[in-house]
Amino acid sequence: MINITLPDGSVRNYESGITAMDVAKDISEGFARNVLSASFNESTIETSTQLTTDGNLTLYTWNDEAGKTAFRHSSAHVLAQALEQLYPGVKLSIGPAIDNGFYYDVDLGDQTISDKDFAAIEKRMLEIARGKHTFELTSVSKDEALAKYKEQGNEYKVELIENLEDGTITFVQHDTFTDLCRGGHLPHTGYIKAVKLMSIAGAYWRGDENNKQLTRVYGTSFPKQKDLKAYLELLEEAKRRDHRKLGKELELFTFSKRVGQGLPLWLPKGAALRERLENFLKKAQKKAGYEMVVTPHIGQKELYETSGHYAKYGEDSFQPITTPADDEEFLLKPMNCPHHCEIYKSGPWSYRDLPKRYAEFGTVYRYEQSGELHGLTRVRGFTQDDAHIFCTPDQLDNEFKKVIDLVLYVFGSLGFDNFTAQVSVRDLKKPEKYIGSVENWEKAENAIINAAQEKGLDYVIESGEAAFYGPKLDFMVKDALGRSWQLGTIQVDYNLPERFELTYKGSDNELHQPIMIHRAPFGSMERFIAILLEHTGGNFPLWLMPEQAIILSLSEKYEKYAEKVLNVLENYEIRALVDNRNETIGKKIREAEMKKYPFMLIIGENEEKNGTVSVRQHGSKDDLGSISIEAFAEVVTKEIEKTLVVFNG
Amino acid sequence: MINITLPDGSVRNYESGITAMDVAKDISEGFARNVLSASFNESTIETSTQLTTDGNLTLYTWNDEAGKTAFRHSSAHVLAQALEQLYPGVKLSIGPAIDNGFYYDVDLGDQTISDKDFAAIEKRMLEIARGKHTFELTSVSKDEALAKYKEQGNEYKVELIENLEDGTITFVQHDTFTDLCRGGHLPHTGYIKAVKLMSIAGAYWRGDENNKQLTRVYGTSFPKQKDLKAYLELLEEAKRRDHRKLGKELELFTFSKRVGQGLPLWLPKGAALRERLENFLKKAQKKAGYEMVVTPHIGQKELYETSGHYAKYGEDSFQPITTPADDEEFLLKPMNCPHHCEIYKSGPWSYRDLPKRYAEFGTVYRYEQSGELHGLTRVRGFTQDDAHIFCTPDQLDNEFKKVIDLVLYVFGSLGFDNFTAQVSVRDLKKPEKYIGSVENWEKAENAIINAAQEKGLDYVIESGEAAFYGPKLDFMVKDALGRSWQLGTIQVDYNLPERFELTYKGSDNELHQPIMIHRAPFGSMERFIAILLEHTGGNFPLWLMPEQAIILSLSEKYEKYAEKVLNVLENYEIRALVDNRNETIGKKIREAEMKKYPFMLIIGENEEKNGTVSVRQHGSKDDLGSISIEAFAEVVTKEIEKTLVVFNG
Repeated sequence: MINITLPDGSVRNYESGITAMDVAKDISEGFARNVLSASFNESTIETSTQLTTDGNLTLYTWNDEAGKTAFRHSSAHVLAQALEQLYPGVKLSIGPAIDNGFYYDVDLGDQTISDKDFAAIEKRMLEIARGKHTFELTSVSKDEALAKYKEQGNEYKVELIENLEDGTITFVQHDTFTDLCRGGHLPHTGYIKAVKLMSIAGAYWRGDENNKQLTRVYGTSFPKQKDLKAYLELLEEAKRRDHRKLGKELELFTFSKRVGQGLPLWLPKGAALRERLENFLKKAQKKAGYEMVVTPHIGQKELYETSGHYAKYGEDSFQPITTPADDEEFLLKPMNCPHHCEIYKSGPWSYRDLPKRYAEFGTVYRYEQSGELHGLTRVRGFTQDDAHIFCTPDQLDNEFKKVIDLVLYVFGSLGFDNFTAQVSVRDLKKPEKYIGSVENWEKAENAIINAAQEKGLDYVIESGEAAFYGPKLDFMVKDALGRSWQLGTIQVDYNLPERFELTYKGSDNELHQPIMIHRAPFGSMERFIAILLEHTGGNFPLWLMPEQAIILSLSEKYEKYAEKVLNVLENYEIRALVDNRNETIGKKIREAEMKKYPFMLIIGENEEKNGTVSVRQHGSKDDLGSISIEAFAEVVTKEIEKTLVVFNG
Repeated sequence: MINITLPDGSVRNYESGITAMDVAKDISEGFARNVLSASFNESTIETSTQLTTDGNLTLYTWNDEAGKTAFRHSSAHVLAQALEQLYPGVKLSIGPAIDNGFYYDVDLGDQTISDKDFAAIEKRMLEIARGKHTFELTSVSKDEALAKYKEQGNEYKVELIENLEDGTITFVQHDTFTDLCRGGHLPHTGYIKAVKLMSIAGAYWRGDENNKQLTRVYGTSFPKQKDLKAYLELLEEAKRRDHRKLGKELELFTFSKRVGQGLPLWLPKGAALRERLENFLKKAQKKAGYEMVVTPHIGQKELYETSGHYAKYGEDSFQPITTPADDEEFLLKPMNCPHHCEIYKSGPWSYRDLPKRYAEFGTVYRYEQSGELHGLTRVRGFTQDDAHIFCTPDQLDNEFKKVIDLVLYVFGSLGFDNFTAQVSVRDLKKPEKYIGSVENWEKAENAIINAAQEKGLDYVIESGEAAFYGPKLDFMVKDALGRSWQLGTIQVDYNLPERFELTYKGSDNELHQPIMIHRAPFGSMERFIAILLEHTGGNFPLWLMPEQAIILSLSEKYEKYAEKVLNVLENYEIRALVDNRNETIGKKIREAEMKKYPFMLIIGENEEKNGTVSVRQHGSKDDLGSISIEAFAEVVTKEIEKTLVVFNG
């Protein structure tokens, strides 16, 4: 008899040799139908594996990442089998599960695959899947394994096996197909009810461009056809909302080959959007007692030697800037904190002056390899909504709470309602990893946890995830497509105050070291706007819209009235523009829809006569009717009040 | 008989041998009394020089730079004589006139001079001056000249003479003193009525640090004692208003050795001031149809090769930034125009879309030698209030006028009432120097001159002063101390549109090249704020003041009422702060005076009871009396309205 411990801590007693799936059935037949894979004592096993010792068993369903991985991994085998049948002589190399699917790298010899062939391959895969073939894992000796693939003339598998240790090698077989494999499969192929090949790409064997280029076939698979459909729709929606596409359509930003990759140029509408976001945060920060500062975009190498950044990032970064003088070297600033430390250092401070809260929309430059660059989410230059708070240990608790308030205000005002938090604390077993006194660490960690609790955050504590210089709190935000983004970091720092020898005079008249808090609710303006674009699909909250309304004239002769409407709206601080082109109203409406103007105000003879505007709202086919300009202004004001959260600092 | 032509074009007929002073006397005895020096056919002469050919004679008074130069040059001789008398054995080297004075570099041997000795030297100088000694210029042969100074053992004069051509060497004598000199003196020493030695400094012979260090004695001199007094007062005032001193006192900015020389760090109050100025201009620019853009602070080397800046400034600048990739080089941007050209290039434009007016508060970096750096006026990183207008040739006229309107609005709102303008046009004799068609140059030059005329500017036209790429208009502004500053440049550019191959589709459906206008009313935020600080002595226009009022409580127990006053003022958008320290009201007022808060609001028991504030205005010793908070708010609003100019865009 063996004792099997389940994740909830319950222990069940079985005869030795029971399979993982049998345990699942013992728990519940319904549950067992959903089990896709299993692990025993933290190692992946097959659901058919017999258990012969005491141990911890975990059973995975589609809701677990491990369940999905087994599903996609098994699908890759099915894909490989289909390819062998349809492309005789194909040589297989590797075929792992990846996020949202799987791929297989194959050497097709003289044959080719294009997306026209996908349907036939998918059909064959489903035919195989319907056979409900089980996956049988068997150990083979290295010689045996090599012999099999040498006979096939498959140099890729031969190379893989040569790097494996004899005694650890397993083959897996389902139906007529055998592959070199470590295990972790579905109970049988019948679970795979929906498959879709996504794309093909060239991929060098082992990622080395000196090797042969193989064909990588990407696919995905699901337990239900409707899951596949939902996934494909999500992909379509993500494509429609791709910030690079929306950024172009809404004329927000552009890139230039001459200026350089990863260096966005903000067009007028994008610059206005940025400024609106910045002003929004500036206003809240002013209420919360922050002071704006302005610092240069370069600093002497010595500055970053003092901060420690140069030692850490020097070689992978933009390289130092020399000058005609011999002894000078500057660096593009990768962060604003060293500059803010120098500002703090400019004055002697007493505990009564603290906290000092220095904020700056500071543009920083960090080198990224060109292959890593992506729209506004991965760039080489970006503007942080940065601030550094210098406070006494006793003030930390309150300051942390205030920062959380500010972050929640930002999220609320921008429609991010779905978020969790992570508190990263020390690994208590490795005290040598951290600088600063144990007493201060305890104070800081407790301050963060208390603040998270008091503010009702949905948070987890991750031990050992703190940086060497202090604990932190990160927010993970879910966007409208269900994707998670890390937004809003609050980080305690004992390191820079020490390196820069920052001090304040305490009530005891002695010099003490202040604690520094780094924080950025948006993170970076570039990345935040990218996320906001994809989250809202470009339909920003009304208060943020670069243009809240467009005035569409039925013909050029209403130009004067259009100007009048514009002026009245300006007095109400409503941002509007006029489309007075000699185009049909239909075309004007269609274009205005695409540019996402929240309101279209159509004006013609009747409107001019009555001093009204005919209002249409973006995304709605109905006319909201003809109302006075003032009444429209009130509609806008009310709509904005609805979306704006209150912040008291 | 000879014909002497005077600057007004009049020709007078004299006997050969008449002196310049005699001509002056012939014009008017009164005028002659003011004549200090003269030039004949563009060469400096003595007023006693006999004229023996036809030619152009110019006579200079104190109102001419040349008159002042002769005055200071002659004063240097008198200083040298005084030093020879007081410091026997002193070796003279060179002693030129400079702006506002003169100096003499001397080798004192074992003797020393300190500012304690100045009074005695000044006294001796005035004694010599009162002798009304004339300056007699005589030619000497090189041998003779060398013999004189070799005998004296003066290696400096010997070295000077060795580099002169025989036949061109002259000595000048007054009283008992002789010096090597090219001429250009006062009629006699008696004109020098006021002298003042300013300072002494070390100066290497010929500016070469391998040579011996001489003692440089700086002095100034005036025709009247009261002119000297006024000058010294001006110097004192300039020292009081030095923006480096005021910047520190008002906590506007600081510098850090670690960040680097010439890279200002803007402290909270300075950053707020900057932002206020920027918002002021942004608002006006919005009215005038500008659009804000944001561009990165670096660009690929290729960008500046395209613009031509790299070829021109490459070696004397911050050097290129390399990256871990082999083929990449970036430059810190020295100007924003190339980036704005790339933004223009991002869209196809029709003539109907123009003008495009792209504005950016763009921070640029230009290398300056450390010896050249000075506070905020000469820095290595600064923010331009930059804009580039892309327009058709037909729009140039109107655009230029609009820019002038904007510049005049800026000057008016900031209290710069005293300015002139300079129009820089082509040298018509050197057409090869300029790019762009003659037709476009004519159009542009006429547009500028018409605009200057129409706007009633006090302007001069300088031929040949245009850049090779286009004509321009510069404003010269006089500050409260009478010093001139170049502020506000408007520059036409045919070059960059060509280099960047910018186009728009004309009404003829063909592609044309737009014209570009560069303009910056402030020039740079750093330099402008420095000038504004020195112009206003820190007493900015009320609308600009970081803090418009300070609330001074008579004791800590009025804290609550102080907060209430602050809140009411905030509702009126009046920027105020509270000084609630436990200090005497006298001390609080003195400190508030130093920080230039325009209004001090004193509150105590009476004020709290009656809901009033006791108002004192900066720089005034009188109390303006106790008035309600609302009445004070009205005072501020009215005061601001008085200083703000109206701008209609």
